[in-house]
Amino acid sequence: MQIVNVLLFEDFTTLDAFGPSEVLGRLKDDFRIDFVSMNGGLVNGSAGTVVATKAIVEVGNYDIFLLPGGFGTRKMADDAAFIDQVKIFAETSQHVLSVCTGSALLAKAGVLKNKRATSNKIAWDWVVQQDPEVIWIRKARWTIDGKYYTSSGITAGIDMALGFIADKFDDATARRIAKSLEYIWNDDKDNDQCA
Amino acid sequence: MQIVNVLLFEDFTTLDAFGPSEVLGRLKDDFRIDFVSMNGGLVNGSAGTVVATKAIVEVGNYDIFLLPGGFGTRKMADDAAFIDQVKIFAETSQHVLSVCTGSALLAKAGVLKNKRATSNKIAWDWVVQQDPEVIWIRKARWTIDGKYYTSSGITAGIDMALGFIADKFDDATARRIAKSLEYIWNDDKDNDQCA
Repeated sequence: MQIVNVLLFEDFTTLDAFGPSEVLGRLKDDFRIDFVSMNGGLVNGSAGTVVATKAIVEVGNYDIFLLPGGFGTRKMADDAAFIDQVKIFAETSQHVLSVCTGSALLAKAGVLKNKRATSNKIAWDWVVQQDPEVIWIRKARWTIDGKYYTSSGITAGIDMALGFIADKFDDATARRIAKSLEYIWNDDKDNDQCA
Repeated sequence: MQIVNVLLFEDFTTLDAFGPSEVLGRLKDDFRIDFVSMNGGLVNGSAGTVVATKAIVEVGNYDIFLLPGGFGTRKMADDAAFIDQVKIFAETSQHVLSVCTGSALLAKAGVLKNKRATSNKIAWDWVVQQDPEVIWIRKARWTIDGKYYTSSGITAGIDMALGFIADKFDDATARRIAKSLEYIWNDDKDNDQCA
């Protein structure tokens, strides 16, 4: 059983978090989804308020780190204490998955230097400024560089999560989950039709 | 400003609720998303715990009713008090949107009789038993019958929500939202590739 720590912050995009969480959560024997925030408690997303069951100090493991994006990333990128925690999560976790502008926070934390990464296309100019030493790939639906998976905007996170499952388990498992979600998987990570 | 009442219950599928909520929530001047449950408070979904900011008795309007599905529908279908509320929401609201096995709850409430509807394909046999007098359409990605929109499983709810926006506003608005979500819209409601 591996723990997926989903790090929430004010004004995160709810679908960034719940898309990949639904995908990974389908493998109940393999993954447990934990929602985490700086201090735990209620966190307001783009639609709805979610419970972070853990404060960061309560996190006891660093298996998989899932970082959503959202309008709130603009503020969080300037929050040094938060970015420090993003850096710790990223460096300590076995696998790191970011959705949308979540990669801007990873970039700001300095963990993506000389690594391939992508992000939301509409916020692109702002994202790449967070660290120009990242190898930013605009056309990708998602990227993989070592333990780092980064996806394009919002629903691309669902595609990436399925890609992660395909890599970690096998293609059949990913397709079985996509089917259970009645999701038409955009399975070509290098070709984002939205780019 | 119209209110979208998203009715939550224990063990709903989080992505059923947050997919369409993210779509509708993009039109901030037109829609406000309210999460509702029988008694308000915390509700456990398939991944994560969400705050229902209103109990049903506190609902003051019935503009748009959004009903997710999930494993919890099996239990809720046998909960007469809950099904009574589903019936009131459905009959009173201007628009009714169900995702996945949410349509089983509408069927159980008796509001879909002689209406076209669809649902999750894996749970299909159970769903159609809830009311055989519904015109169940297996092949649809989503269906429209008067004010009732019903979608197939989980991510089909995102497609349906975009279809609802296209019908209520225009196609360009739906496509603009899909683009903002970097979502590749399966825009043919009559052809579910997952069916």
